[in-house]
Amino acid sequence: MAQKDSLEELLVQAVDAAKSAGEIIRSGFYQTKRVEHKGEVDLVTETDKKCEEVIFNFLKQHYPDHKFIGEETTAACGASELTDEPTWIVDPLDGTTNFVHGFPFVCVSIGLTIGRIPTVGVVYNPIMDELFTAVRGKGAFLNGKPIKVSSQSELVKSLLATESGIKLDKSTVDATTNRINSLLFKVRSLRMNGSCALNLCGIACGRLDLFYLLGFGPWDIAAGAVIVTEAGGVLFDPSGKELDITSPRIAASNPLLKEAFIEALQLSE
Amino acid sequence: MAQKDSLEELLVQAVDAAKSAGEIIRSGFYQTKRVEHKGEVDLVTETDKKCEEVIFNFLKQHYPDHKFIGEETTAACGASELTDEPTWIVDPLDGTTNFVHGFPFVCVSIGLTIGRIPTVGVVYNPIMDELFTAVRGKGAFLNGKPIKVSSQSELVKSLLATESGIKLDKSTVDATTNRINSLLFKVRSLRMNGSCALNLCGIACGRLDLFYLLGFGPWDIAAGAVIVTEAGGVLFDPSGKELDITSPRIAASNPLLKEAFIEALQLSE
Repeated sequence: MAQKDSLEELLVQAVDAAKSAGEIIRSGFYQTKRVEHKGEVDLVTETDKKCEEVIFNFLKQHYPDHKFIGEETTAACGASELTDEPTWIVDPLDGTTNFVHGFPFVCVSIGLTIGRIPTVGVVYNPIMDELFTAVRGKGAFLNGKPIKVSSQSELVKSLLATESGIKLDKSTVDATTNRINSLLFKVRSLRMNGSCALNLCGIACGRLDLFYLLGFGPWDIAAGAVIVTEAGGVLFDPSGKELDITSPRIAASNPLLKEAFIEALQLSE
Repeated sequence: MAQKDSLEELLVQAVDAAKSAGEIIRSGFYQTKRVEHKGEVDLVTETDKKCEEVIFNFLKQHYPDHKFIGEETTAACGASELTDEPTWIVDPLDGTTNFVHGFPFVCVSIGLTIGRIPTVGVVYNPIMDELFTAVRGKGAFLNGKPIKVSSQSELVKSLLATESGIKLDKSTVDATTNRINSLLFKVRSLRMNGSCALNLCGIACGRLDLFYLLGFGPWDIAAGAVIVTEAGGVLFDPSGKELDITSPRIAASNPLLKEAFIEALQLSE
């Protein structure tokens, strides 16, 4: 493997790309309140596209042979299948609703899979200036300092995160609130922050103990998956099965809570 | 009114007190992960008490004739009745669950009522270094810059915040999730951050459009109430009645959303 393809070098490039996109997000974030009459949807689309462009152009220049999957590209051209090739999976702006409202949980998420295994992960929140990074086998970091998942072993003392979702049909909303109802009796409290990638980073650094989400794209989790794993956490399908990063279902916790969490999730269905 | 009792001077003292308590919170916040075996409950109680002591000692020195209501004191000595006298209402550490978990939504909340009207408000998040301040009739500020509520007028585009609550009996949890179920069909998305005072500040600076909460103490809202009002927002009982700051029920929004929000809240009961 050439020097420029070493995992550390890949991480350095991903961080550079994330920081460049972060600048664009930061600048848009403080504008949202001023463009309410221009149309907030335009601003999101514009920022999203600009960030994806900057990230893809930068990485394609360094890694012309790699594959690329992005939320914006997928929206425009349909889903690209994940192969064994080195593949950059990018969410240029995770937390778009937060972005529109000026709520500080927004981030860039850049993950690289090799042989379909999440191998490099960068999640950058440019508003709170928090940079989460991980390389497979090398640990996980927040602004350069090692992080690890919580050591909590009891559900009843655990902080759970999920999201209310974006599909508003009756059966989806009913399933969402029924699940929450069932879980609220078993955990300490519930948080909803509006960013899947930052929820995964919350698990990785022990701010959150439990996270699950149904209904999203692979771009939301590719980076977070490496970060959680390298911080000592586990990722799995909410049913308890092995995680399929191309399916829109995920759960994460520390290893001590996994069995009890799966049982609670199963009973909440 | 003597110079030292001017509203601006009262604000300056409240900010000083909040910053001192903020230091204690910040130091504890980064310790929580290291004292898991000592007992997190001890750390919360310790931090909570130390902060309340620092704030009350400081303010009593400057204002020996004022009354004081604090969460810790109330827990120890029973509720003090709110009178017309100048009364400092303090939550030394709002977001205790977040504090324990290292989740960055924690704050000090210091409000002053005069004639039972919230008149000076300071909410300080020492982790994100955000200082929200307001004096009745003088506007609201975040780190010294003027803030205002959102100009959103449609529920369907609004970001709603509430909390999952701390009472875990079946009828409370069922009522909570039924309310959320009903509201999710009407708003854009839901956030739960774990701090009542910071939710009010979120309304004040337009990050959030709608907030309601049932079940808390007056210490959670005395400061936030001034900040929301001075940022152009409105506070009311979720039933639509006038707010009673000594009752454990609150709703807040910008004035454009108030009627629609009350209707949605009433239908969610």
